[in-house]
Order: sequence, then C-alpha cells, then structure tokens
Amino acid sequence: MIRNIKDSPLYRIVNPRSVAFLGASNRFSAMGTNLLSSLISMGFAGNIYPIHPQEQQVQNLAAFKCVLDLPQVPDVAVMVLPTQLVPQAMEQCGQKGIRHIIVVSGGFKEVGKAGIRLEAKLTQLARQYDIRFLGPNCIGIANPHHHYNVTFLPYVGKPGFIGMASQSGSFITQMFEYLAELDLGFSTGISVGNEANIDIIDAMEYLAACPHTKAIALYIEAIRRGRAFIETARSIVPHKPIVALYVGGSEAGKRAGFSHTGALAGPDKLYDGLFQQSGVIRADSITELFDFCWVLGSCPLPQGNRVIIQTQSGGPGAAAADACGRAGLDLPEFSPHILEKLAPFVPHTGSLKNPVDLTFTKNPLDYFDGIPKILLAEPNADMLMIYILTPEKAVTRAIEAMAVPKDQIKNLAGAYFDDQATALATLKQTCAKPLIGFSFHNRQNPMLRRIQKHKIPVLPSPNRAAKAMAALARYRRLREIMTHCG
Amino acid sequence: MIRNIKDSPLYRIVNPRSVAFLGASNRFSAMGTNLLSSLISMGFAGNIYPIHPQEQQVQNLAAFKCVLDLPQVPDVAVMVLPTQLVPQAMEQCGQKGIRHIIVVSGGFKEVGKAGIRLEAKLTQLARQYDIRFLGPNCIGIANPHHHYNVTFLPYVGKPGFIGMASQSGSFITQMFEYLAELDLGFSTGISVGNEANIDIIDAMEYLAACPHTKAIALYIEAIRRGRAFIETARSIVPHKPIVALYVGGSEAGKRAGFSHTGALAGPDKLYDGLFQQSGVIRADSITELFDFCWVLGSCPLPQGNRVIIQTQSGGPGAAAADACGRAGLDLPEFSPHILEKLAPFVPHTGSLKNPVDLTFTKNPLDYFDGIPKILLAEPNADMLMIYILTPEKAVTRAIEAMAVPKDQIKNLAGAYFDDQATALATLKQTCAKPLIGFSFHNRQNPMLRRIQKHKIPVLPSPNRAAKAMAALARYRRLREIMTHCG
Repeated sequence: MIRNIKDSPLYRIVNPRSVAFLGASNRFSAMGTNLLSSLISMGFAGNIYPIHPQEQQVQNLAAFKCVLDLPQVPDVAVMVLPTQLVPQAMEQCGQKGIRHIIVVSGGFKEVGKAGIRLEAKLTQLARQYDIRFLGPNCIGIANPHHHYNVTFLPYVGKPGFIGMASQSGSFITQMFEYLAELDLGFSTGISVGNEANIDIIDAMEYLAACPHTKAIALYIEAIRRGRAFIETARSIVPHKPIVALYVGGSEAGKRAGFSHTGALAGPDKLYDGLFQQSGVIRADSITELFDFCWVLGSCPLPQGNRVIIQTQSGGPGAAAADACGRAGLDLPEFSPHILEKLAPFVPHTGSLKNPVDLTFTKNPLDYFDGIPKILLAEPNADMLMIYILTPEKAVTRAIEAMAVPKDQIKNLAGAYFDDQATALATLKQTCAKPLIGFSFHNRQNPMLRRIQKHKIPVLPSPNRAAKAMAALARYRRLREIMTHCG
Repeated sequence: MIRNIKDSPLYRIVNPRSVAFLGASNRFSAMGTNLLSSLISMGFAGNIYPIHPQEQQVQNLAAFKCVLDLPQVPDVAVMVLPTQLVPQAMEQCGQKGIRHIIVVSGGFKEVGKAGIRLEAKLTQLARQYDIRFLGPNCIGIANPHHHYNVTFLPYVGKPGFIGMASQSGSFITQMFEYLAELDLGFSTGISVGNEANIDIIDAMEYLAACPHTKAIALYIEAIRRGRAFIETARSIVPHKPIVALYVGGSEAGKRAGFSHTGALAGPDKLYDGLFQQSGVIRADSITELFDFCWVLGSCPLPQGNRVIIQTQSGGPGAAAADACGRAGLDLPEFSPHILEKLAPFVPHTGSLKNPVDLTFTKNPLDYFDGIPKILLAEPNADMLMIYILTPEKAVTRAIEAMAVPKDQIKNLAGAYFDDQATALATLKQTCAKPLIGFSFHNRQNPMLRRIQKHKIPVLPSPNRAAKAMAALARYRRLREIMTHCG
C-alpha cells in the first residue's frame, strides 16, 4: 500500500498541473478533439498544449508540432493517436522528460498478435524512460474536483464521492448522466484499459488515498494479479468500502469480455471466493454497483441488519417487507414504549406493526418529522426505510382547492416540500442510524430533488433499497472482520 | 370465462355512463373530495352526482341529499364514507336500483372481528339487492380510455395497454407517474381491496376481454380461489399474457400482507407452482412486473431465446451478455453471409462477435438503420437487443463545433435524433422479431423520448432488458403449451 497519495503512479495522471494533448485537432468528428473539448469545457486551470503536425491553433489554443518543442515539461501527455504512431510519440515524451501518459488509442493487445507486440513496445519504452502510463485502449480520466475530464463525453453533474476504477471506459463516461440525475457524481473515474503499466489495483490504491472518495466502485472483467488484489483490498476495507461488478462469470459474459479488453475471465465462483477473501462487496449489475456506493457513501454504518419500514401504503409496505426478507434483513417488532408513542399518529385503518402503514397522516409534516423520529429511537432496530410519496400534481391540486391566488401556488408548494425535506434532513443529522428512502417518483419530483440535496439516498424501488441496506450491514461486518484479521 | 365483456360484473364499474359519489365534499383534505377531483379533471363525459347531507353544491356540481333523490339510476356509486355509514348507504343504493358499487372505505375485514361482521353485512345486502361491488378497502378504478379515474391521485400520462388488477390500490395510483415517464399507462387499473364480492379473478376475466389491454399485470398478496385462478388463467394465456407479482412468500412479506388486506399468504413455492400451472409469468418486483408487461405489450413474439446484442461500448456489451446468460438467453454466432454484410460497418477496434461492439460508426445513422437491419436478418437469432447511447450534450457540442448559428443548433439536433428514431421505427414495423433497447440515459433524453413514442421499449439497464426478453420468450412457449393442453 502507498503511504501517501502522491506516491501513486496515478497521482499526476489524475491531478496534473499541465497537459500535452496528442491527437486533438479542429476536426470535430475526431475522437481526440472531443477529449480536448471535454477538458476545456471543465474549466481546467492548468496549461494545455495541443500537439499537432500542421495546425497553429487547436480549439483556440496555441499548438506545437512536437512534444519536444514544448516550453515546459507537462505533468501528463494524453494520446489519442492512430495506433502505429503511439510508440514514437511515447519515445518523444520520454526524451522530453514527461513521466506520466494516458494512452487512449486502441488497437493493442485486444486485437491479437500484432497488437500484443506493439503493447510490449510501449511497456519497454516506459521502462526505458521511467514512464508510468494508463491504458492503452482506455477512455481516460474524469476528476471533476480538479476540473479535469479527459474522456470522450462532456462531464455533467457535480463532483461526487464515488471513486471508480473500471476495465470498461464506457462505465465511466456513459454513467455521468445517470449519476447526475441521482445528485451523485464521481470523485474520480479511472478507465484502466489494457492495464499494460498501471492496473486496477494501482487505481484502487489511489482511490483509497483520495480524500474525496468515500466508496470505491470497481468494474472488473478479469483480475490479473489475484494475490495483490486480495492484499490491497484487505488493507483498504477497514477504512473504505469497495464494491465490485464482475461480469465475466457466465459463458456469454466471458466471451464478450475477452474481445473487449483481451482479458481471460474465470468462473463465477472463483471470483465470489476472491471477493469474499478480499472483503469486497459484489454487485450484480451496474445500477446495483452505484446503489451500493450511494448508500455506503451517504449513511452512517448500522449496528446490525434490523430494519423498520415506514409507509403510507399497504402494497409498497408489503413489497418492501418482502424485499427486506429476501435481502436477508430482519424486521423487528416494536418495544412497548415506542408503540405507545407511535399510536397517536396511526389511524385505525393503518398498521402499528412493522412495516408501519400510516395510510395517511392528518398533518403531512408528521410523516417526515415526528413519526420517523420515534422510529429511529427504537432500540431493537438499526435502520429506517421510508417510503416517499409526494406526487406534485396532487399537492398543487390540494393547494388550488384552498382558493390560493394562482401566482402563489408554486411558492406554497415549494414551502410545503421544503418543510418536509428539512425535517427529514434534521433527523438525518441528529441520528446515528441509516435513513434511506424509496420511491417510484421520477427524479424531477420536487420532494425527491430536495431530499437528495440533503444527501439522503432515495432508491427507485423497495428492492433496490433493501439490497443497498443489506450491503451497508454487510460492510459493517466486513470492516470489523478485516480490522481484526489485518 | 365470460363470453362478452358486458357479462363481467366489472363492466359498468369500469365503464359507467353516470356516477353517484358518496363522501366527496368541498373540504379539500377529505379523501372523497380527492377522488371526485380526479374524476372531474379526467374530463369524464357522463353525469356525476355528488351525494352530501348538507351541501347544495360539491365542487361546482349540484349535490343531492341521498341517492334516493337522484333524477336517474346511476351506473355506479362510489363510496368514500366513514366505515359505519357504508351499510346504510348500500341499502339505499339497492333501493334506488343501483347495481354496481365501489366501496373505497376501509375498516372492514382488515381490522379484525368487528370489521368482519360489517363486511358480511355488505355481502348480505349485495345478495339481497342483486348488487355487485368492488372493495371494500380498495382505492377505486382508473380507466383513462373512458376518461374515468376514481382514485385518490390525479391520473397522469396517457391511456395505455397494461391492464392491472391489484390487491394493493397503491400499486395502481402510485405508479401513474412511473408509467407515464416510460410513455406507458394503464388500459384499466382495478384495485380489488378486500374482494368481498368481486375478486381478482373477476378482474382478470374483465381484462382478458378488454380490447385496450395487451398484457395483464397482477399484484397478489393471496389468492383465495386457487382452482378458479388456475382455470381462468389457463383460458386467458393463449390469447393474452399474464404477469404476477406475489410478495407473500417471505415471512416478512406475509406478515405485512396480512395486516394490509387480511389475506393469509402461502409459501413461496406453493405460489410458484400455482403460477406455473396457470401459465402466469412471475415477476420479482413491481418494476419487473411493468417491464414484462411493457415488452409483452409492445413486441411480436420471438421464435426462441437467441439474442443478438448490438453496442458501441465494450462494458455495456459485456454486461448485457452476462445479463442475457443469467436470464437463460442464448447468444448465437453469426452466419457467414451476415458476417460478410456486417464487416464493412465494424472498425478494427470493434468486435464482429456477438455482442457486436461497433466502438463507433462513421455515419451515426448506420447504428439505427443499416446495422440493425443486417442483424435482424440473422436466421440464427430471434431477438435484437440494442444499446442506446445518445448524450444530448455531446450531440449539441458536435453541432456547435460545425460553426452552426446558435439558433439552429436545437433544430439540427432535433433532426439528427428524428432521423435515427425514424430509422429504428421503420425497422420495427417491417420486422417480425422483437427489437428492444437498453440505456442509462434518463427519460428526458431526446432520443429515448422519440424511440419510446415509436413503441420500442428501452429498458433502463441491460439486466432489466435481458429479464424482460426472457419473459417474452417464456410467454411464447407458455402460449404454445396452454393452447395445446387447453
């Protein structure tokens, strides 16, 4: 394990003060041009040096014919060149004294024999010039905290707390939008490509040391250094959770992975064992990978796996109870003193059992304030799962019916949602237990937007919420085990 | 089985020409008021008669003191009254000659002894007056094709093709918004409540006969008439698919269901067997229930379970392949003549295997036109699964880079998406195989919106797409079995 983030070979690759760009031009359809656009539009603060054999200017930046002509030695060179040109460019970088490179270009190991030879050439050059490089066949890096995005797609959303290392670049860039909608984002996303010089284990070490990263997400098609993976993971897990998606286990997934990064996947059970030994939590899908990181990065750790479900509807309550049962979570009964406090809030049509089904609350604010406060105080429970139902149209309809002037309806609805979200946020701040919502609303729902702003995760279904809560309880146990067993 | 939809006890409940409303007022916080608002805002064409002991007008409609005073015999009476008032109101309905009632009011069997007695009284009155009634403890009916919504929440979205019968009213009303976002909606949603007189099997029969319903969704906490369920389902499945979510199987789900509708659930395996005998496809979650109905109602049936995956990214391709493998779908290899046609479209960085990974296409339109056309012609495959990646910001950035005047960017982007969506829609129309997309974009993405308008389902993850496609293949087999075995 590295002692300091600056010891990571990725440190300057992820946080460069200056960047040379090989392969960008003014031709908008070229891939390199898009990467440079992504970097410029992030408002990167350092110098950017486009390298171009003909152009004087590339995207309004002064261009240079060759890295050897640069007025300074940039921290990193990004290459989006035709495959055959990469070795020579790397050699020139070495001569210039550039020590960190991102090779986005593909056409190496993943395409067979000729590619394998070319990739070996890169490794040899890196050794010769003391260069550390990411890729080839990767999609770059996104570090929004550093206003730095050298990937094919523009970064959308905010800097976040999910650090991802991925053997698929798509699962970095193509998830920007997905995460933004959930008010999430990457702390840093690292596409490792063919891992010729820097691999996913180096990336894990970097993310473990990264102060913005609260949860580490891995997308794995094959682990090349099994022993090192286990040791590194075991040293990280006592401090930070690691969640992994592995798709190489099925025959179909294996074949697809091989033609993608040239990696040979192993049987599902082998990886299950590997993750278990490592203290890594396995996710079954890309959405689950992010769900787990979402709650792991937003919630305190629970003491155990006992959940209270608060709903205002029987069906979602029953579905949530079922989902909790299947996820291995327990639904405890209430202590007498909690029941006593709860009773005045529950109408005769509701249920005082767990799930607490309120059917309706006379004062809607109670649902987000008085009631969850009582439930969070239940000594027999470790987590609270709360169903969020606040259809915007129904709320504005109710306000309209109060004969409110039209121009005030929006403000009143806003205040209504604000009060509720603030009440819930206050509870979250004062309570040491995880508080997790689930809802079928879309993400434009004004209440959901507000709750998410307060960093309370609201999962899009009871099943996803239950699985994420089980991951939270699982991490708590893993952390204890890993801490005591070293 | 009923021979004609008009023979269903639900026909006039779901398609009334006039409605009496008991329990609505001008007090906006009352539940009945909200139900009446929902009906009015749908633009219901028939007469609506609010019944109110004091008010002259309720929500601008002339009110009557008692159903006995009404100028006509309405097709249906909707009751949202305090529990104790329901029997007398039902008796008056009977005296007036009203033959169909929806009892929304709760406080019956689900609350224990006293409730059981009251519910028995309703059943006795129904027998006495030849009344058929839905509920009690239900949330009403939404039939958007008839501009008719008597539920607590306003209907949003369009009339759709999913017919749902649910033992939880929440899973009707609280999914309006969810379905609308996917450009889906209910043909009719029926909340059966305590099923004192009309049960979920009656609702299945109605939906089987309903011309707007293409797929039947069931939410089940307990089936009371097992034999009838099997027989009815077996007679429906050869004509229409049935998908069911059952949550009573786990200990937690069972307890929650009991306090919800007073139904006693059975073990998971028993229900698995019941569904299997019935030809009903079981879903594992509420989102899966709608996913399955979505593809079943939008796609032709596949000849088998062989899938081609088309992507432009390795990671999503590998994840999709893995998901297909786990869902029991096969990924066939390509025939030589298909490979030959495909080759010119696939760059050297891509993969000509299945999944077809194009990495990029010089002409973006090919991805939605020439390439899927070739893949759909593969004789070894039954379905096409296509990854949709069209980030709006990247598209507008590319157009901006062409030095297009600012005011034209939006139009050009629109035309770009239109062309692609139209190409895909044309393929769908001319091909007898299911064409199903998956994407991580949110539902505001302009390409997704367009594709959905053309009735091509785009699932929000490869895993959900794979499971839905497996359900499609499964239904094809079930239909054959049920047709031949009667």
